[in-house]
Amino acid sequence: MIYFDNSATTAIYPEALRTYTDVSTKIMGNPSSLHGLGTTATRLLEASRKQMAELLGIKPHELFFTSGGTESDNWILKGVAFEKRHFGNHIIVSSVEHPAVKNTAEWLATQGFDVDYAPVDSRGFVRLDKLSALLREDTILVSVMAVNNEIGAIQPIREISELLADKATISFHVDAVQAVGKMPVEDFLTERVDFASFSAHKFHGPRGVGMAYIKSGKRLTPLLHGGGQENNLRSTTENLPAIASAAKALRLTLTDSEEKAQHVSRMKQILLDEISKYEKVTVFSGTGGFIPNILTFGIRGVRGEVVVHAFEEHDIYISTTSACSSKKNAAASTLTAMNVKGSLATSAVRISLDFKNSMAEIESFLTIFRQVYAQLEKVSSH
Amino acid sequence: MIYFDNSATTAIYPEALRTYTDVSTKIMGNPSSLHGLGTTATRLLEASRKQMAELLGIKPHELFFTSGGTESDNWILKGVAFEKRHFGNHIIVSSVEHPAVKNTAEWLATQGFDVDYAPVDSRGFVRLDKLSALLREDTILVSVMAVNNEIGAIQPIREISELLADKATISFHVDAVQAVGKMPVEDFLTERVDFASFSAHKFHGPRGVGMAYIKSGKRLTPLLHGGGQENNLRSTTENLPAIASAAKALRLTLTDSEEKAQHVSRMKQILLDEISKYEKVTVFSGTGGFIPNILTFGIRGVRGEVVVHAFEEHDIYISTTSACSSKKNAAASTLTAMNVKGSLATSAVRISLDFKNSMAEIESFLTIFRQVYAQLEKVSSH
Ligand SMILES: Cc1ncc(COP(=O)(O)O)c(C=O)c1O
Ligand SMILES: Cc1ncc(COP(=O)(O)O)c(C=O)c1O
Repeated sequence: MIYFDNSATTAIYPEALRTYTDVSTKIMGNPSSLHGLGTTATRLLEASRKQMAELLGIKPHELFFTSGGTESDNWILKGVAFEKRHFGNHIIVSSVEHPAVKNTAEWLATQGFDVDYAPVDSRGFVRLDKLSALLREDTILVSVMAVNNEIGAIQPIREISELLADKATISFHVDAVQAVGKMPVEDFLTERVDFASFSAHKFHGPRGVGMAYIKSGKRLTPLLHGGGQENNLRSTTENLPAIASAAKALRLTLTDSEEKAQHVSRMKQILLDEISKYEKVTVFSGTGGFIPNILTFGIRGVRGEVVVHAFEEHDIYISTTSACSSKKNAAASTLTAMNVKGSLATSAVRISLDFKNSMAEIESFLTIFRQVYAQLEKVSSH
Repeated sequence: MIYFDNSATTAIYPEALRTYTDVSTKIMGNPSSLHGLGTTATRLLEASRKQMAELLGIKPHELFFTSGGTESDNWILKGVAFEKRHFGNHIIVSSVEHPAVKNTAEWLATQGFDVDYAPVDSRGFVRLDKLSALLREDTILVSVMAVNNEIGAIQPIREISELLADKATISFHVDAVQAVGKMPVEDFLTERVDFASFSAHKFHGPRGVGMAYIKSGKRLTPLLHGGGQENNLRSTTENLPAIASAAKALRLTLTDSEEKAQHVSRMKQILLDEISKYEKVTVFSGTGGFIPNILTFGIRGVRGEVVVHAFEEHDIYISTTSACSSKKNAAASTLTAMNVKGSLATSAVRISLDFKNSMAEIESFLTIFRQVYAQLEKVSSH
């Protein structure tokens, strides 16, 4: 099996899984309990928080555990919106956000918030001039992702940080789910960023754990009210085995991350060089400004799902852009936002690499690619 | 170690933990993915849903996975409130709900909803006459828990179901987190119940998994917007290893549940008989109408946390009523709602048993109890 769908989900590290089982069997307490078992649990919880915060270059009390990237996104958008609604009700999100941000913004629009979508250029990058033009006196929140999940475009977080530098009343949220371990933390967690979202299963951690970065002093309404866990901001019995496991996974992911990124870049470059030679191939995520692990392309005239299934016959797993939109049979929303039209948009498929992939897999893929291309070219509608 | 704090959290079954690790290592896919790995994941997800639904006597499409009891409670209360706000804005919750319900209701009150708290009698049971008197034309939701987590009072869900029988526009939610495996499902999941909440770590399943029962045809607004998982009602990449593990735990919990309940009842009866003999002991959860696994009592004049720590010296773990309120140093809110006052209320401690506890542990506990009582009686303020 060749697994090239690492942006959808990654395999948990064996070491992280071991942490999960160790904590599950050895640490009985509920961190909220008064007795010693509770204290032991609390200590591990806070050690995990401290370790992850250090790795992300933030303070432990700025890191909150959630159930995933989606909850972090929902919490931050809704929490900031409800918290700040008396100051203004204008929200801007980019037009290429993950549905966890986009659909949340759409829901907020039904609740009386005024939502604008910052457009992208034809390559998928948020246009700073357009974003700047959308800013208003009553803007309370700007949300732009660090790395787009469908084509891997790295968004101009530094530039947006500068744009917002003198606009202290605007909260700035960055969905960093696809960025962790793929690029230096300081490139997406700038001084100006107030909120950020993370998800452990994208960096070989367990499912069902996310994190929210909430900069010191920034306020938001809880999404989960209850027993008062996570400094009264996110209630529920803490998922300690999974949190400790996520901490382990983050440490392993960020170990030698430059070497890993270089290896992934080399693999992507070879793939790019080779598939670009085919006449009907359109590449949506080249090199300048795109994350090394994502390569989105299409074979003109062939629907993405046909390509996915053709590779699957050879035990190679790629995807029609994001896992979320894949079952809906629609064009990737990022491509639509880029103004890519019709059959070109629906041709898109995404290869998402991981440092665990090997050059041998790249070679196998390219051999199969030649066969698949020859076979599909015949049935292509162009 | 004697662990008598099973209402706070339970140890995961070794079999359920094995399911977690098996699924984590063997099933790679994201259920949303189009390819075969996604299909395999979807199949296991739906098999888990079907198994749990059957065990709960509901239909698979009525069962939704969440991150825990707190999320289920928040989702149902907020989801119903936002969905139905055009029909009315009056909500009733009992005065002894878990903070996941109570604090959510309080937040809804800040958002323009009109919230009433149905009082309980001196033993902790919701008063039907008072609840009935609170019902209005514009009532959209009634939320009453099946089993109270602080004293184990079984609430009159059947009677409330009758009360609401001819009031089809009122949604009825039952927080069943403390009920699963402790009493027959049909006693808290009546025909009239529209929504219910569950949490896996209370029945020897993994942390971070809850379920929401949403009766066929009943609508609510999502709490987590995003990729459209869970029939478009609860988005995020599904926590498949934990969900499959929770399904295993539910099956094991409900196997021989009558025998287990009888064993637990016998242990509680012996504890009750013995500790009642001590002059300064007040029992808050006797037998008639209380769940067999919870025994809440106080030693008059001795604060609950002092009792908890005294037992901890002997490696016995009990708690000051709920884990959530234990760190806040306040009287259990259930006792306050029962109108139990001052030092009597703050004396309360909770023993919560599990079928895995043994008669030998009960005997050891009682031996230690004699010592602890003698020691604390001297320092008691009454
Ligand atoms: C950019 C982005 N944001 C948010 C999410 C949602 O994360 P999760 O599946 O952990 O809810 C994903 C992945 O699905 C993503 O790629
Ligand atoms: C009655 C009740 N409801 C809700 C919860 C919250 O469950 P969880 O910890 O899974 O969020 C609990 C336990 O903490 C509970 O006892």
